This record gives sequence, C-alpha cells and structure tokens, in this order.
Amino acid sequence: MSDLKTAAIIAAAGLGKRFGGSLKKQFQNLIGKPVLSYSIESFESSPLIEEIILVVPEDFISFCNKEIVAKFGFKKVTKVIPGGKERRDSVERGFNSLLDEIDIVLIHDGVRPFLTIGMIEEVIKEASKAGGAIIALPVKDTIKKSCSGNYIERTVSRESLWLAQTPQAFRYDVLKRAYEGTRENDFAVTDESSLVERLGVQVKLVEGSEFNIKITTEEDLLLGELILKEEIYKDVSNRHRF
Amino acid sequence: MSDLKTAAIIAAAGLGKRFGGSLKKQFQNLIGKPVLSYSIESFESSPLIEEIILVVPEDFISFCNKEIVAKFGFKKVTKVIPGGKERRDSVERGFNSLLDEIDIVLIHDGVRPFLTIGMIEEVIKEASKAGGAIIALPVKDTIKKSCSGNYIERTVSRESLWLAQTPQAFRYDVLKRAYEGTRENDFAVTDESSLVERLGVQVKLVEGSEFNIKITTEEDLLLGELILKEEIYKDVSNRHRF
Repeated sequence: MSDLKTAAIIAAAGLGKRFGGSLKKQFQNLIGKPVLSYSIESFESSPLIEEIILVVPEDFISFCNKEIVAKFGFKKVTKVIPGGKERRDSVERGFNSLLDEIDIVLIHDGVRPFLTIGMIEEVIKEASKAGGAIIALPVKDTIKKSCSGNYIERTVSRESLWLAQTPQAFRYDVLKRAYEGTRENDFAVTDESSLVERLGVQVKLVEGSEFNIKITTEEDLLLGELILKEEIYKDVSNRHRF
Repeated sequence: MSDLKTAAIIAAAGLGKRFGGSLKKQFQNLIGKPVLSYSIESFESSPLIEEIILVVPEDFISFCNKEIVAKFGFKKVTKVIPGGKERRDSVERGFNSLLDEIDIVLIHDGVRPFLTIGMIEEVIKEASKAGGAIIALPVKDTIKKSCSGNYIERTVSRESLWLAQTPQAFRYDVLKRAYEGTRENDFAVTDESSLVERLGVQVKLVEGSEFNIKITTEEDLLLGELILKEEIYKDVSNRHRF
C-alpha cells in the first residue's frame, strides 16, 4: 500500500445556508480553530496521503491560504481552488486539478472535522482492492417516509441500510470513468460514490464512528465542541485509533 | 390539553446484547446515575404526565424499585413490571397494565436519556390532534443499501426520510386498536408507530434533537457523558427547552 500515490480533496465550498450569521460553517470557530482545519490536520498527519486539495468559495481562497494553510503550516495542501455551483461540481474541479499519476483519490466533507487517521487508512486499503470504499454507519433507528404535512406515509425497512459519511476513496481511473458518465441532472447527486456505483464497480462500506458528524447547524457545532473534549481528538497523534 | 390523562411507558427490558460486561445498558452508570433514571426524571418533571410504567427484565424489578424509584423519589412511577420476549411484547405488557381512562399513552426507550420536557409536550399535543405523533429527525446523510460482504447495492433517495426516535405518543383507543390488529410475525416490529400506521391513523413527525441519542454501545455511553456536560441537561428544570 505504501507505494500508492494518494490525494485528498476536501469539499468546503458550501454556502452554509442553514447556518445563521455570515460566516460559513466550514470556517466557524471550533475551540479556537476553524472547523475545516481539523480534517486537514488528519489528512496531513496520515503518512498515506501525499497531497491535499482544498475546494472553497472563491472569496475565501485568500482567507484559506493565509488563515488556515500558512497559519497552521499545512505542507501537503498543494492547491486551494474555487468551488463550482453545486457540491458535485466543486469536487470534480478538485479532481480535474490532480495529475493523473495519482492512484487513489479521497473525497471528504470539510464540515466533518472528526475523521480519524484510521478511517483514512481503511478506506484507502479497501478502495485499492474493490475500486471504492466509503465510511458509513449501519442505520440503528427505525426509518419513516413522510408525506405532506409531515405525517408518516410508511415505515421503511432499515435492514441493510447505512448512513454514508466521508472520507470516500476511489481508484483514480474509476472516478475518472464515473465523471465521464455524469448526466445533466447529476447536480442533485449527494456523494461521489453514487456516480461510481452506476459503473458497477464494487464500493465497500467501512464502518465509521458516530463521532464523525457533519456540522450543519448550531447544535452540531455544540456537539462538536463536546467531542473535542475527548482524548482521541485532543491531539492529532491520538487519531491513529479508529 | 390539561384535562387529558396521560401515561408514559418506558421500555427498559432489553438484554443489551451489544454491550460488553454484565450490566444491561439501561442500568449503566452515566455520571453517577443509571441511564434509565434520566428519562424517568423528564417524565416525572412534566406536568402533563400522570403516571409512569417501567418495563424491565424480571430480575431487575427489585433493583429498579429500590435503586431507582425509591432512591430518586420518583412519585409518578406506579408500576415496575417484567418485560416480554421482545421489545414489542414488553411495551404491550405496559399498555395492558393501564386503566382505560387514560387518553394519551407515551412510549419511550429507556436507553434514550436525553428526551426533553418540550418533546413530551409536543408529541402529546400532536397526538391528541392526529391520533399519533413521534419524535424524529430528518435524514441528513446519504443512505446506502448493502448487499453481501458489505458492498453497496445502491443509493437510496433520502428525500422525505426521517429517523424515528422516542417518545412516541398515541391516543389510547388508537393504540388499543393497533394491538388488536397485531400479527404473528410482529415480533420484528421496531416501534409502536408501525402498528398504528397500518390502521391508516395519521401519525405526525415532530422534529427532535440530535442529542436524543440511543445508548447501545460503549461509544454512545461516552457521547452521553459529553452531552450531560451541556447546560440543558445539567438540571431537569432546563429541559423545558426543546
């Protein structure tokens, strides 16, 4: 595995419409550091990651270069590029900026600060075997489908259902083929794995952690502060544990 | 609403197979108190709740009476009864122990310590109008369906999908009819709402909180400790906030 060239694309171009206030959620302060800096730190600390591409809103490029990359001394961040209209476009822009000598590409949500180095290693290992691998959690709750007025239409069987998280890892050639096959209405695609699944490529589900939350509301930010009090997140060197 | 007679059934008869160690998860220590005691405290503190029924493993009845009900001085707990083979049977036993002058029945998982008094009020209000109401969260993550070997079979549309939590509230007559209509293979039913939905009764989805977690693993217990450091959970009087 050590001879695989891997790159991580961090999607952080979201407009954060769900958040109050003017600051986008990936740049919110989480115990003294921007949310986005935590995931960069994990990728930076993994010996398997060679290069990190940040995709951010155009008017935040200078902020990211100065206040994140330079300030924290991240050496693996090779490019900070502007995002596209939708999340999917942003990730594809990140992909297009890669050299094609890359073997494995990891994609990660910039608003998921609590990925571990163990997760990074595991998805790379599985993706190199199967073609793709994503961090996910088995659904534990009962699932309901709603109809208008937020009444329940029916209960959905939760058997074999997983909640997809990131990082998601794919062989470079697989993801390249997936992008070549994109369709006009793909703006609604919520993860890259969906595009890869269509090719018939095997994508492995790797069980993640309930701590690997996505910060999209003020409540999530609060939960994030709580999680950061945990030993495993206090110092990046602890994040080698899964 | 104040003239409605309401009872809460707390399902705490689970065997906790997923937990290591011999103590069942509803009785695990969570910052000095058993997990189960937190939800009783919320129901006890709600002026809308008249009676609380605890359904526990038969060999824990004495422990619950002594170490929970008597020790914390819970005055609304009228019965501590043994559970059945499956969760569904346990809740039905609790229901059968109620007098039929009850108007609204709430059902709650004993391993969800972080329900708030606001949630209790809201499901009672909605259930009295619609017939039933449950606390739930809109699905934010992408959902995958797995096939053998934990590979992804396909991506499931998350639109209109909700993760069901508890409390769930139903009009007494509605839940009674739901139980009369149960079928032989209903042991696999994961919540009471599923039984009520079959009757064609409207069940309202009430948006809950990400803090309203179910404690089924050691990791959840840790997360529970973190959540308890939050102001809203430090004292039951704060739990009037939603």
